[in-house]
Amino acid sequence: MRESSLEPPGYPDNPVLVRLWRGDAVESQHRGAWVLTDADGRALDGAGGFDAPFFARSSVKCLQALPLFESGAVEHLGYTPPEIALAIASHNAEELHTSGVARMLARAGLEPRHLQCGPQPPGDPRARAELARRGEKPGAIHNNCSGKHAGFLGLALELGMPPERYLEAEAPAQSLVRQAVAELSGLRPGDLGQATDGCSAPTFRMPLTALARAFARVSSPAGLAPARRAACERMLAAVAAHPEMIAGNHKRICTDIARATRGRLFPKLGGEAVYAIGVRGEERALALKIDDGGYRALHALIVGLLRRLELATAGELAALESWEERRLRNWAGLEVGRTETLV
Amino acid sequence: MRESSLEPPGYPDNPVLVRLWRGDAVESQHRGAWVLTDADGRALDGAGGFDAPFFARSSVKCLQALPLFESGAVEHLGYTPPEIALAIASHNAEELHTSGVARMLARAGLEPRHLQCGPQPPGDPRARAELARRGEKPGAIHNNCSGKHAGFLGLALELGMPPERYLEAEAPAQSLVRQAVAELSGLRPGDLGQATDGCSAPTFRMPLTALARAFARVSSPAGLAPARRAACERMLAAVAAHPEMIAGNHKRICTDIARATRGRLFPKLGGEAVYAIGVRGEERALALKIDDGGYRALHALIVGLLRRLELATAGELAALESWEERRLRNWAGLEVGRTETLV
Repeated sequence: MRESSLEPPGYPDNPVLVRLWRGDAVESQHRGAWVLTDADGRALDGAGGFDAPFFARSSVKCLQALPLFESGAVEHLGYTPPEIALAIASHNAEELHTSGVARMLARAGLEPRHLQCGPQPPGDPRARAELARRGEKPGAIHNNCSGKHAGFLGLALELGMPPERYLEAEAPAQSLVRQAVAELSGLRPGDLGQATDGCSAPTFRMPLTALARAFARVSSPAGLAPARRAACERMLAAVAAHPEMIAGNHKRICTDIARATRGRLFPKLGGEAVYAIGVRGEERALALKIDDGGYRALHALIVGLLRRLELATAGELAALESWEERRLRNWAGLEVGRTETLV
Repeated sequence: MRESSLEPPGYPDNPVLVRLWRGDAVESQHRGAWVLTDADGRALDGAGGFDAPFFARSSVKCLQALPLFESGAVEHLGYTPPEIALAIASHNAEELHTSGVARMLARAGLEPRHLQCGPQPPGDPRARAELARRGEKPGAIHNNCSGKHAGFLGLALELGMPPERYLEAEAPAQSLVRQAVAELSGLRPGDLGQATDGCSAPTFRMPLTALARAFARVSSPAGLAPARRAACERMLAAVAAHPEMIAGNHKRICTDIARATRGRLFPKLGGEAVYAIGVRGEERALALKIDDGGYRALHALIVGLLRRLELATAGELAALESWEERRLRNWAGLEVGRTETLV
């Protein structure tokens, strides 16, 4: 027998957080970590290796967008609230998203060809079917990150940079982005790990405590410097008023959480099952990561934690409970198992 | 801090078997168990809790089909080799699959309405798009298990049962199925756990060693009783000649393994990332389970194990290597990470 090594370097030994039962036995299980912190990143509750670094991926789009506001670009370009929400979205490429991103680009005198995020099929099945019906291929505007990239382009122009350099890690636009991410998460820039995201932008690695700290600050921005506070307030208001813009109308938990709580919770998904939720006005936030990167466990765990930590009311939880999939039914509709969250 | 319990009852503490790297750090990881056994279920190599019971799900369709042969139904109904492969398939609902299942039903004087597996959208995207184009909804015939159900119906008629009782656990058809599964896996019937599968058929829970034992026997059936040996030889020949019938032409590793090895390997997927592979004529077989039920880790691990255990030639591995996703590229085509199998 040859046993594999138990832990890869740098990855924590996280506990089981979600179990899938079939009949009277566990069929599958998911491990991960989560933490609830205050605005200084102090852990108030949690499980697993929340102090170990994880890639935050798209969960930090609201941090990556701060220089767009602080540079004045949002005002100079005249972004509307739906467009502000798109700048921090991982959207489904529904028509309302792609038309919004096209408007953001047009405000800067740019076109979809300036986007460097790469083509991605729409997350929304109707949008995919409509593309297929027209015989068109997905483009960069359908990439779930196209709103973030449109914002990066707006920032680059505001800084006087050539637009084709907007993703370069060492050029001014991404340097400001990295600085904002570090400041909000409370990390020294040297402690912020970096790699390349699915959309080719720099992505950052940080402890879940740092991610939660950042969301606690963005969601309760009264103590921030005036320009940063104003930026956060505009993002919070945009998501509360336009929850469909940060994700989409088709099966997206971010939109459903923002909608069910009327923007009191400020949620964001990141690739490979990272999640962050700020609680407006409470200087608290939650951050989660599922080890295997899968969304079914993440969705169930989010609802389980909102219930256990009393971050959502009974009415809000009722609107979200389908994400928990407590009862598992098969193709014929028979109840064959259940999802259990260990929180 | 409240820590979740580390292990659910009855589920083993499996090691990390697959890591996803982004840049120079592990982003996600998958745990699981695997075992290589001989035809008596003795572990020759392995990792994790391969002695613990797992739901075998669709991986044992070839065992569930044995009574169909041994009862004489296959001959009386005149099943062709492609139809024999469909009886043990988890198919994509490509046209060649659904038309084959319709033929199987017609041979027994039955229709798709007799299938009790429930409607499932086709796994093949072209088949899904074609259904949508025609304004039709998926039916039970599109369920990946419809060939197995057509076979169960053929068995029930052969036994003189009313077709509507073909899934009843205590009726003759499923009693014979359960007995065959127990005999091949080397378990006493009382040690074979049971629950309801995604297609409403009984599904069985057994150690990976028992699953591998069964596949070693089916793939090297010389020592079995004559009728059982003949059944196994017909299934092996059908899969070797018609590998597209057990899964499909669109992104299915079972078909690709059977095709690449010209039927020398006898592979089968089960729900929630269970897998079994028999090695024809060698009285050895491999069984795997990924804890989180996800297929990306399963696919990578299968290829990693075929290489490490030298169960496939260099040429066969070359035909399968895309399933390992050693290099991970983003939407823009940049290489952003890699998949590592710990075998």
